[in-house]
Amino acid sequence: MTDLSVSQEVDTDENEADAFRDECGVFGIYGKPDAGAVVTLGLHALQHRGQEAAGIVSYDGKQFRVERHVGLVGDTFTKPAVLERIPGSRAIGHVRYATTGGAGLRNVQPFFAELAGGGFAVAHNGNITNALTLQNDLQRRGAIFQSTSDTETILHLIAMSKEEDMLAKFIDAIGQLEGAYSLVGLSQKKMIGARDPLGIRPLVLGDLDGAYILASETCALDIIGARFVRDIKPGEVVSITDKGIESSFPFEKPSPRFCIFEYVYFARPDSVLDGRNVYEARKQIGIELARECPVDADVIVPVPDSGVPAAIGFAQESGLPFELGIIRNHYVGRTFIQPTASIRHMGVKLKHNPNRRTIEGKRVVLVDDSIVRGTTSQKIVQLVRDAGAKEVHMRIASPPTMSSCYYGVDTPEKSKLLASRMSIEEMANYIKVDSLGFLTIDGLYRAVNEPSRNNSCPQFCDACFTGEYPTQLTDQQGFSTMRTLDLLASNG
Amino acid sequence: MTDLSVSQEVDTDENEADAFRDECGVFGIYGKPDAGAVVTLGLHALQHRGQEAAGIVSYDGKQFRVERHVGLVGDTFTKPAVLERIPGSRAIGHVRYATTGGAGLRNVQPFFAELAGGGFAVAHNGNITNALTLQNDLQRRGAIFQSTSDTETILHLIAMSKEEDMLAKFIDAIGQLEGAYSLVGLSQKKMIGARDPLGIRPLVLGDLDGAYILASETCALDIIGARFVRDIKPGEVVSITDKGIESSFPFEKPSPRFCIFEYVYFARPDSVLDGRNVYEARKQIGIELARECPVDADVIVPVPDSGVPAAIGFAQESGLPFELGIIRNHYVGRTFIQPTASIRHMGVKLKHNPNRRTIEGKRVVLVDDSIVRGTTSQKIVQLVRDAGAKEVHMRIASPPTMSSCYYGVDTPEKSKLLASRMSIEEMANYIKVDSLGFLTIDGLYRAVNEPSRNNSCPQFCDACFTGEYPTQLTDQQGFSTMRTLDLLASNG
Amino acid sequence: MTDLSVSQEVDTDENEADAFRDECGVFGIYGKPDAGAVVTLGLHALQHRGQEAAGIVSYDGKQFRVERHVGLVGDTFTKPAVLERIPGSRAIGHVRYATTGGAGLRNVQPFFAELAGGGFAVAHNGNITNALTLQNDLQRRGAIFQSTSDTETILHLIAMSKEEDMLAKFIDAIGQLEGAYSLVGLSQKKMIGARDPLGIRPLVLGDLDGAYILASETCALDIIGARFVRDIKPGEVVSITDKGIESSFPFEKPSPRFCIFEYVYFARPDSVLDGRNVYEARKQIGIELARECPVDADVIVPVPDSGVPAAIGFAQESGLPFELGIIRNHYVGRTFIQPTASIRHMGVKLKHNPNRRTIEGKRVVLVDDSIVRGTTSQKIVQLVRDAGAKEVHMRIASPPTMSSCYYGVDTPEKSKLLASRMSIEEMANYIKVDSLGFLTIDGLYRAVNEPSRNNSCPQFCDACFTGEYPTQLTDQQGFSTMRTLDLLASNG
Amino acid sequence: MTDLSVSQEVDTDENEADAFRDECGVFGIYGKPDAGAVVTLGLHALQHRGQEAAGIVSYDGKQFRVERHVGLVGDTFTKPAVLERIPGSRAIGHVRYATTGGAGLRNVQPFFAELAGGGFAVAHNGNITNALTLQNDLQRRGAIFQSTSDTETILHLIAMSKEEDMLAKFIDAIGQLEGAYSLVGLSQKKMIGARDPLGIRPLVLGDLDGAYILASETCALDIIGARFVRDIKPGEVVSITDKGIESSFPFEKPSPRFCIFEYVYFARPDSVLDGRNVYEARKQIGIELARECPVDADVIVPVPDSGVPAAIGFAQESGLPFELGIIRNHYVGRTFIQPTASIRHMGVKLKHNPNRRTIEGKRVVLVDDSIVRGTTSQKIVQLVRDAGAKEVHMRIASPPTMSSCYYGVDTPEKSKLLASRMSIEEMANYIKVDSLGFLTIDGLYRAVNEPSRNNSCPQFCDACFTGEYPTQLTDQQGFSTMRTLDLLASNG
Repeated sequence: MTDLSVSQEVDTDENEADAFRDECGVFGIYGKPDAGAVVTLGLHALQHRGQEAAGIVSYDGKQFRVERHVGLVGDTFTKPAVLERIPGSRAIGHVRYATTGGAGLRNVQPFFAELAGGGFAVAHNGNITNALTLQNDLQRRGAIFQSTSDTETILHLIAMSKEEDMLAKFIDAIGQLEGAYSLVGLSQKKMIGARDPLGIRPLVLGDLDGAYILASETCALDIIGARFVRDIKPGEVVSITDKGIESSFPFEKPSPRFCIFEYVYFARPDSVLDGRNVYEARKQIGIELARECPVDADVIVPVPDSGVPAAIGFAQESGLPFELGIIRNHYVGRTFIQPTASIRHMGVKLKHNPNRRTIEGKRVVLVDDSIVRGTTSQKIVQLVRDAGAKEVHMRIASPPTMSSCYYGVDTPEKSKLLASRMSIEEMANYIKVDSLGFLTIDGLYRAVNEPSRNNSCPQFCDACFTGEYPTQLTDQQGFSTMRTLDLLASNG
Repeated sequence: MTDLSVSQEVDTDENEADAFRDECGVFGIYGKPDAGAVVTLGLHALQHRGQEAAGIVSYDGKQFRVERHVGLVGDTFTKPAVLERIPGSRAIGHVRYATTGGAGLRNVQPFFAELAGGGFAVAHNGNITNALTLQNDLQRRGAIFQSTSDTETILHLIAMSKEEDMLAKFIDAIGQLEGAYSLVGLSQKKMIGARDPLGIRPLVLGDLDGAYILASETCALDIIGARFVRDIKPGEVVSITDKGIESSFPFEKPSPRFCIFEYVYFARPDSVLDGRNVYEARKQIGIELARECPVDADVIVPVPDSGVPAAIGFAQESGLPFELGIIRNHYVGRTFIQPTASIRHMGVKLKHNPNRRTIEGKRVVLVDDSIVRGTTSQKIVQLVRDAGAKEVHMRIASPPTMSSCYYGVDTPEKSKLLASRMSIEEMANYIKVDSLGFLTIDGLYRAVNEPSRNNSCPQFCDACFTGEYPTQLTDQQGFSTMRTLDLLASNG
Repeated sequence: MTDLSVSQEVDTDENEADAFRDECGVFGIYGKPDAGAVVTLGLHALQHRGQEAAGIVSYDGKQFRVERHVGLVGDTFTKPAVLERIPGSRAIGHVRYATTGGAGLRNVQPFFAELAGGGFAVAHNGNITNALTLQNDLQRRGAIFQSTSDTETILHLIAMSKEEDMLAKFIDAIGQLEGAYSLVGLSQKKMIGARDPLGIRPLVLGDLDGAYILASETCALDIIGARFVRDIKPGEVVSITDKGIESSFPFEKPSPRFCIFEYVYFARPDSVLDGRNVYEARKQIGIELARECPVDADVIVPVPDSGVPAAIGFAQESGLPFELGIIRNHYVGRTFIQPTASIRHMGVKLKHNPNRRTIEGKRVVLVDDSIVRGTTSQKIVQLVRDAGAKEVHMRIASPPTMSSCYYGVDTPEKSKLLASRMSIEEMANYIKVDSLGFLTIDGLYRAVNEPSRNNSCPQFCDACFTGEYPTQLTDQQGFSTMRTLDLLASNG
Repeated sequence: MTDLSVSQEVDTDENEADAFRDECGVFGIYGKPDAGAVVTLGLHALQHRGQEAAGIVSYDGKQFRVERHVGLVGDTFTKPAVLERIPGSRAIGHVRYATTGGAGLRNVQPFFAELAGGGFAVAHNGNITNALTLQNDLQRRGAIFQSTSDTETILHLIAMSKEEDMLAKFIDAIGQLEGAYSLVGLSQKKMIGARDPLGIRPLVLGDLDGAYILASETCALDIIGARFVRDIKPGEVVSITDKGIESSFPFEKPSPRFCIFEYVYFARPDSVLDGRNVYEARKQIGIELARECPVDADVIVPVPDSGVPAAIGFAQESGLPFELGIIRNHYVGRTFIQPTASIRHMGVKLKHNPNRRTIEGKRVVLVDDSIVRGTTSQKIVQLVRDAGAKEVHMRIASPPTMSSCYYGVDTPEKSKLLASRMSIEEMANYIKVDSLGFLTIDGLYRAVNEPSRNNSCPQFCDACFTGEYPTQLTDQQGFSTMRTLDLLASNG
């Protein structure tokens, strides 16, 4: 007897909550047999952008099929029976982080609807900062919402558009959006890709034996041996049909503001985004950090895994040895629930264990990507002290994170960000280190090959460090209900 | 790792397809703690009206919760974890037969949406005969459909209504419907019940310690010890709030046309519908049948389970012994797949087995409720002949079924109905019986306490026997695409 | 990620516990391609003999495969993937009732072991009354027990036998057993069938296109269109190989003592056991009962489903009308948990509902198969009174059940049996009926075509009615530990 | 309806087969409430020693409970319902690699049996080289085997022992064993730990608030904050009761021969085994390797994850930069099935992706732990060449692996080992590198702090490198059937 529930809780590990959560990832391919299987592989390569759920919509020339699962792509989408349910040579897919609010599979993308002009599916990476405002307006006009996702809002705008063809409807719809988005859409005739005018979230174009691919990162091209063609440009809309690809720029073109945090933490190290290799950027961050905040110590220890490239750079620049002083258990899923109450108080080291022999009696430099709430840093520092470190110095591979992100990243509210309420010295006391150093904002810009931040017209979106948001935040300014916060938090 | 899929195939047993499939069942309760658990019990009692899937929406004064499962209520909704997900003292639920077209859980009711005026859920028993026409119009106005269910159409009509309050919107919406419906709706303030102006499908009102109940049949009141108050009247809309119940009749009042087939087959024998006990009606049908089509024989054998009450009546009237000559295996689920090809050709008797000692050498009268395609009758007759019956006479507890139903019953298209293409004599030859007798339409009316059918203004909907449809069939007349047929077939 | 647990709780419905629980069923076939699928069908027909779990062992000429599932055969064994795991043209299977004591799948039969002489599987219907004594002895000799099933004891006896070939080992082993058993075994060369010297449990031989079949009841032959050859005789051992069937009677031959309760309740009505059709026997029981305990009343109402055949006989003999005054909901699984505490006190009628119109104001005769604890009878009588019956008379289609069964039937201990501690008059008061009548033991013997019970040498095992056990009860007499009771209760 | 199967296939990734597979891990705790939950955590820390299945047996003073699951501990054992099924303050557990031969859960440890003297459970890390010989003898004496695991053989030897108490039986049993074993046993009174006389596999003793712990590695103590007490010594048997721990050395004491490959690959880097920290040993291996096989190159790139520590050592010693030139996708489960045939031929990079910018145009030194079949090395080298490396030099952190392991490690047969059939030069050609270097056996001994290998009495078991097996291989010498190989391969 099969028993399928649409509601589903996904438990999250306490430590994970002390991080900027990865946003979503999107992938689409047009013109390749078994497209659903190719999308499965692409999503697997993008799994770091969203581990909780995934969905694929395929089109076989006759019918759209929707398949959504909670869990890792490699666990849920690789069964032959699942792949057989998404036939066809065109498909788009999406990975996402936790489905908040118990909405479960209802919030798993891509979203699909039968519109008057035919079926349309859309997958979204980013966050629409006027989604609630649009949604309230749409509801007043009679629209029914099945989810709390801003992606459904986009579908409704397409459905309500007075334009004639699907591409025109799509452009009409996204013209009403504020915020950050990289979108992949699939209609009966086309695959559509679009990036918001500031290009806040990444989107790349690839080619596999003549089939076009749209993907969040280049690592999703590499996994299937596809060729990287180019980044989709900020504000660009591409339309892919049997006749090839057409590009347009339907909106005004402001200066691009790519998310600089993609280089700090989100993207996979082997990806190349807007021309920069992520690993090299991170190593360079470590080099800049070693220059800005040198320290007299015995050993450089990364907080695995995200601190590793910066630690390598820091070690190279400082001449101090790089050592694996903390071992990460990769078997821990995000869903490892600390079992009983008695266990919960044992201070269990589920994910990180210090390598005592490497640390004992040493002056240790810990390198981590960022400090969010500070709770993880506290624990890691305590681990290292308990293992006998003589001194513990923390070096952070980014500036202090002082503001929330409204562009598709799950961040705590501002008041929960340690750097928003403490000075660096206070933070050092709080996490109990002998010294604490952050990279400067200019150091970060140098690491990604800019001479410095252009303060009158910054080259990147760095709102989490500076509080300077490159778009309006209509919902944020106009509402203050719980519902608002919920919606703002739940998309990606 | 949890793995939830929204697409789901439900296999159906070949024999079952040779029957008018039970429609849906609805149940709602307002003002009882653990309402979700009460609805679970009510749906369990209504399981015969739809075995494939069930859904419940609860409201706890703050939040609506939606829970949908494929499978029997007793298997899927009775786990504590499931019931904990639907808290509150108000809830409505729905059971349905097979979710056609692979739409899976998307088509499982109740449907719920956040409207501009708040959340609203609706469960539907019946079928809207102008649903496609309405849906096309709604899509042109920008509505997005997530399912192929006509129930979603009703939600869209409510959402698009210009009326002010939810009840007025609801009445505005159902005023646009054609066809048969018994609806139960749940808003933040109210539970609403409605029956179409002809009252084609049943809906009863009950009371449990002051909490109001709406249910498809009285057996769903009995299971929880609730008191039967009255039938909801054709064309009536009731609105239940903390202050009590209000009734209105917003539409013109034609003569009622309750579905007479509910007495023949659909309803549970212990239910009382529109004042008539179903078991007594069926036994009376057997009595009328024995009078109209007497036969010189040795034994009366029901085709279990639906033929039993009529066979009891036939035996009493004819004076012939009633015997269990065919044994039904109740463990067979609808999902028993005949395993391998080699097995499929063995003529496996999964559900019915003749009781040879009771039949051998006897002149057997088989009593069944109806003949649809005739394939089941052929098999049953063959079973009985193989078991050594000297003669086989078939008596059918209804007139020949010659026309499809468009009011929420899954019937084969007209050309597949045996009676639409054969005379009674041809049918007797086809199913290989020594004699075949059907009840007359007047006999059927007599069995339900009418003197005879009033041909100028029939007391019931008997379209499946007479082809006289009491409503317009707008979709049926206006479309002829596969999509139409699909939609017409898929609702209930 | 697959997640398989070996421990498994099976919840049981409170009412069910007030019955003698069906024992096990066995089925084997030798020489038919897709034997595993055929066994699946056979077990489905025997599902009434054990609904909680099932197992199949197949042999394809090279390898034995074991497949065990908790749940109904039609739900768990019909998936193609499951059937593919049990290939070959020889297979045996088993259905069983609840796996007590949390032993879960460990106790699900058939049992299989690699012995010195090759693999051997065995499935058992019955109970060994010296199993504990044998097990203790085997453990002292170094045997390891994986389960609490007496079937494993049989395997150990085979393994420890000094005989040369497998059949001789098997006979050596069963020669040490006391109690009741019908066994089906499968070795690399043979399928073996055996029935204890008294023939307490049934076992029949069938033929399907030249393939031999062993099954608990003839209904398992009917489902696949197999021919009934004959009953395996008490004390007979048959050995089936490619060369055909060989029969032997290795033990002394006492007079047979077939379980008379198989006719009262356990067997399916369409089965023929030891020459008697079960339905006819039950109807005849009703006739004898009407003669012995007549009553002046208006209507005969069976307690469904087990009381139906006797009620038909009672009605025919008494001339009173047979009516379905109580409706049974067949969708209730054994696992329907009454959900919350508040619901549990509502007096929910999950399984039986009175049909008020048939009962109201009437003098009702309820016919049931037996009274065990009396709790179900109390509830049913109350139901019928609440529905307005003027008088309620209970007629029981067997003598009072006064003693526990140790031959493979799950019975309460003696002190819990109502008839062991009350007179008939006290019982009538307890269940609150106007009169109560049981069939006499001689009446029961007459119903199965014996002139009367031969008290010096009874023709059947009727220990549950008379307390006369036809075998020694070594464990029962020798032990009184909890473990003993546990083991005695857990087999079947 | 729950559906539990005992048969279960575990698919394995092709690449994984080109490695010495991790053996098993064991963990036990005596005297801590919620012992089952503590064991869950310990097994999670030992997950690298066996990812396919896990089992826990608990004892609560009254009853033993067995819980076995296929899958990762963090997925299968962390649900509250699972932990509730293993109550008590004493528990032992086991993780294991793939359950070969379709035996599924039957082979998952710990094994448990009710013996004449009470229940006994045992978990085993290692392999018994005379298991088949013992098993054949046991079967001749009437023992029944439920699995193909040599651990069950140990249980049978205990069961058949003529000794009086459980500890004496246990010592009697293990006195008959040849090969490698670290065992943890649990009886009603004791937890027993034992290590074979050569101490081939590790076993450590820990303490958590007075509760004793036995575990394969110290990292399993660290996770719960337990104190490392000492290694269990080769040939030692410890018996833990409420009164404390007792130690004995019941057998002759040969020189220890700890498995040197634990330092190369098996153990977790943060563990300390026989006094040596694994990470430090691996880094030292890299240093020795850099000294023995220097190379003129631009960059040191580890094959992740196992090559990382040696690569760090190699980089430090050589002065060349350490870079993450290959990125590993940690989301890939071992069960990721390459979906369709068309996909299988795309050369999908599921697990490793080159970081092109780090490699392009460079002379790359790849550092890996070992070469087994050579197929993975071929693929990795090709990846790196495709990413534009100018030269590729491979350095291996161990001597050539030329012989199979019979001590609990899943190794290919000797003929499949690349080093057994090729010279180093031929291997270099085969994997297409510009140069290939292995560590010498003396270099390896130096890395673990020995001056050199004592060839007359080696300090370690290094049979995989030297072919010198420290124990008899009775089964291997006496049998040559498939069954033998199967058994030899399947244990751990």
